[in-house]
Amino acid sequence: MTGRDGGASLVPDPASPVVILVRPQLAENIGTAARAMANGGLFHLRLVAPRDGWPAEKAWRASSGADAILDAATLHPTVADAVADLHRVFATCPRPRHIVKPVLTARGAAAELREIAARGLRAGVLFGPERAGLDNDDMAQADALVRFPLNPAFMSLNLAQAVLVVAYEWWLAADETAPRALMTNETHVATKAELENFLSHLVDELDACGFLRNAPKRPGMVRNIRHLFERGEVTEQELRTLHGIVTELARGRRMRGRDEPER
Amino acid sequence: MTGRDGGASLVPDPASPVVILVRPQLAENIGTAARAMANGGLFHLRLVAPRDGWPAEKAWRASSGADAILDAATLHPTVADAVADLHRVFATCPRPRHIVKPVLTARGAAAELREIAARGLRAGVLFGPERAGLDNDDMAQADALVRFPLNPAFMSLNLAQAVLVVAYEWWLAADETAPRALMTNETHVATKAELENFLSHLVDELDACGFLRNAPKRPGMVRNIRHLFERGEVTEQELRTLHGIVTELARGRRMRGRDEPER
Repeated sequence: MTGRDGGASLVPDPASPVVILVRPQLAENIGTAARAMANGGLFHLRLVAPRDGWPAEKAWRASSGADAILDAATLHPTVADAVADLHRVFATCPRPRHIVKPVLTARGAAAELREIAARGLRAGVLFGPERAGLDNDDMAQADALVRFPLNPAFMSLNLAQAVLVVAYEWWLAADETAPRALMTNETHVATKAELENFLSHLVDELDACGFLRNAPKRPGMVRNIRHLFERGEVTEQELRTLHGIVTELARGRRMRGRDEPER
Repeated sequence: MTGRDGGASLVPDPASPVVILVRPQLAENIGTAARAMANGGLFHLRLVAPRDGWPAEKAWRASSGADAILDAATLHPTVADAVADLHRVFATCPRPRHIVKPVLTARGAAAELREIAARGLRAGVLFGPERAGLDNDDMAQADALVRFPLNPAFMSLNLAQAVLVVAYEWWLAADETAPRALMTNETHVATKAELENFLSHLVDELDACGFLRNAPKRPGMVRNIRHLFERGEVTEQELRTLHGIVTELARGRRMRGRDEPER
């Protein structure tokens, strides 16, 4: 889950939105924000008046290898300067009051950011200082606010986590991974014929040992066994193991010379 | 974005899945994981053989007020012990190899966790140690693996961030916030009649000052002005401001005695 993997190969996607950290306090948080950006395929970082100055060595140390993002970050005196070349600006903000503004979920914002990028326009997302958040003048420069739906009893997110949620949703908005897929690695899911072959083997042995000797119940019992194996997306390799198990269990019984039905 | 807000009011949702931290190294990471759980409405925390022992004061200091989760956390010697009473277990794992297992996205896992909860069953999610991640024996105890789709060039997530993604998706899976909504606070979106009233006022003044004197172009110009205001979900309060602006601008012109068309 951790460790440096491939930070050196971070490639800027020119269409990806700009992350703008407004008056960030701790350089370390700039580094962890850069790391979160890298997780979601974001690259462009702008810093508005960071309290501890810039560049700050602590940011690089905290970025887990997202150095390329920090190396390319630009410094800006004001929010207005940082957003001047952008067409659309969103502002993350947990609890705005007295404001008339569209409010997007992080997921809604990601969908709009993808749409903006597809139209060849540039967008940015403002993140406020660690404690106070964005002030009213900052928010007035934004087209829309982004508010993550989170547990209202516990909204506290640190800067890197807020960036992570936006970056994660940006990545997901273009990701087509199936919600569930069987990973089989070197083997493959058994064909129905392979499965049928195993089930025949199993039923033959169960007939031989008398497990299925109750004729009226036999069809239902066979069907239940079939349901168990059909459900599991059994692989070809697992079927071979199961064949072996059935053969070995049956051989033990045969070697003890008890081939007749038991119980 | 930060600060302690309402940690004291964290209420355990009995249907919510259990977070199981397997051999976590740093107590601080247990605290930040608890904070991330709170963000997404998770409460039940189990610790398998934490390296630094338990309880550890550093966890409470790092939890930003998610104390109730840490207070209720239970300690377990093995993964088997920690999952014994659960019906379904998922394991977070970035890059499993040589394993046949269903792989879920975090979003897919959240949907399944909600479904499991709705059926009255208990589920848990395993998170591995900070560096090594879950080992093969840990993963063999899980029904399915959870792998977040993230930038393959930079998969590095710390423990709290991995917990945050799962908790966030758990929360989102039952959240019905609209992806975009206009926040109006004390005012309301103007009715079409209120908007029409303002547009009539504006067009009257534009006629008076000669801005619309080009008769063939007049309908198109009026329509474009209408498009601008219709698009913006203007509020009743903003319309009053706009009425005032138009009136004041027109009065200035009138006071200078230049009531005739200009330019």
